[in-house]
Amino acid sequence: MLAGKRVKGFLSDVTGVLYDSSHGGGAAISGSIEAVKKVCEFLNYFYQLYAESKVKFLSNESTATREEFVRKLEKLGFELKPDDLITPAPSCAKYIKEHNLRPHLLVYDDVIPEFDECDFSNPNCVVVGDAEENFTYENLNKAFRLLHGNPDIPLLSLGTGKFYQRTDGPCIDVGAFTTALIYATGCKHIEMGKPSKEYFNNALEALGEKAEDVVMIGDDICSDIGGAQKLGMRGIQVRTGKYM
Amino acid sequence: MLAGKRVKGFLSDVTGVLYDSSHGGGAAISGSIEAVKKVCEFLNYFYQLYAESKVKFLSNESTATREEFVRKLEKLGFELKPDDLITPAPSCAKYIKEHNLRPHLLVYDDVIPEFDECDFSNPNCVVVGDAEENFTYENLNKAFRLLHGNPDIPLLSLGTGKFYQRTDGPCIDVGAFTTALIYATGCKHIEMGKPSKEYFNNALEALGEKAEDVVMIGDDICSDIGGAQKLGMRGIQVRTGKYM
Repeated sequence: MLAGKRVKGFLSDVTGVLYDSSHGGGAAISGSIEAVKKVCEFLNYFYQLYAESKVKFLSNESTATREEFVRKLEKLGFELKPDDLITPAPSCAKYIKEHNLRPHLLVYDDVIPEFDECDFSNPNCVVVGDAEENFTYENLNKAFRLLHGNPDIPLLSLGTGKFYQRTDGPCIDVGAFTTALIYATGCKHIEMGKPSKEYFNNALEALGEKAEDVVMIGDDICSDIGGAQKLGMRGIQVRTGKYM
Repeated sequence: MLAGKRVKGFLSDVTGVLYDSSHGGGAAISGSIEAVKKVCEFLNYFYQLYAESKVKFLSNESTATREEFVRKLEKLGFELKPDDLITPAPSCAKYIKEHNLRPHLLVYDDVIPEFDECDFSNPNCVVVGDAEENFTYENLNKAFRLLHGNPDIPLLSLGTGKFYQRTDGPCIDVGAFTTALIYATGCKHIEMGKPSKEYFNNALEALGEKAEDVVMIGDDICSDIGGAQKLGMRGIQVRTGKYM
């Protein structure tokens, strides 16, 4: 697939590609630690000129801050720096500040620190992430009531994934709850993670490469591969994670 | 709207038309008890021939058995018999038996007795109703896992409402959770309540009247009025419930 075409950088999904998540921390997918090392060595060997990493990890995961997520992956045996990891919550917090928004958060508790600098008074937007156990009827209803009858209040979703792979099995993902809130309210939706064009463009900027020179690796045919291909990247779908 | 045209029977929605629900039992909507009486008197006066009631109550509510729902409405001051009330859970239980299905229930505890005669072993369908507090992440995920990767397993929903009116405010309804499960799994969906054609036809059969002679009263422009009009009934939207 990659023969005869230049590859100057890789973007890789994390959950379902490097590891399967769980409440306890998750488990590395067999061979993934070595594969990441080999890809990095390959790029270093061929180009031998980059101080910065030419592999970035582009995740939609929003159950932890980026720093905690890196620590979790390091514990599993991966070597990466926080700058190598791109997650939707910091992008969302940046968007919120740039647009003078005040969020109501429907997210996992551990990711709340990413929004520390936001103004939570009198919310004029709703943010929905991988809230998992925080997706109670009461919490969904709070988000619903803010959006209901207020067409000016947008819903910002940290991805639109249908499901993800956890060590105990597949799990319904943020995209389903996003769809539920859109169905019930007709609200305006702004997508903050993959496969949004802006999110992939941020990742290409972080890599410092053009789309045609970059390969995206992922387990999700829509969010990872489809999103990347739309921008002119190449995509490799792994047969782990939600592919299984 | 009704001038010059024969009206031989009425169908009326319940929640948002007769009363607004709440955990404590709800509250009758001002004037609704008297309105129901007047409509019944009107029909009796003009036709003076029917032993059976020519007003049936067609609800999508699925937080109680039909008998309990009637008792709740009687406590609020309404006069009706269980046979006057049509709810989706008994229709769904009938459908399940007729099609040799074995349900996994994602419903409110109080409605479970409607499914007493079902076989719950090795489920081959999922039923979703107004589960309210039972809409936990864990419960949704259980339903998701049954539907995921099993295209033969259908999702039966007790209505597709976007929201309903509770005394403490509007509440996100079963249609949103149905949409979430369809989005995440691509499952086959079978609708058991309004606005499904079969459900309205059952109600017309119970009334013993033709669509063109019947008026549907409701607060939901899609589920009540749109559904009825598609079958040739006339619709009157009240300005209570979710209209507010």
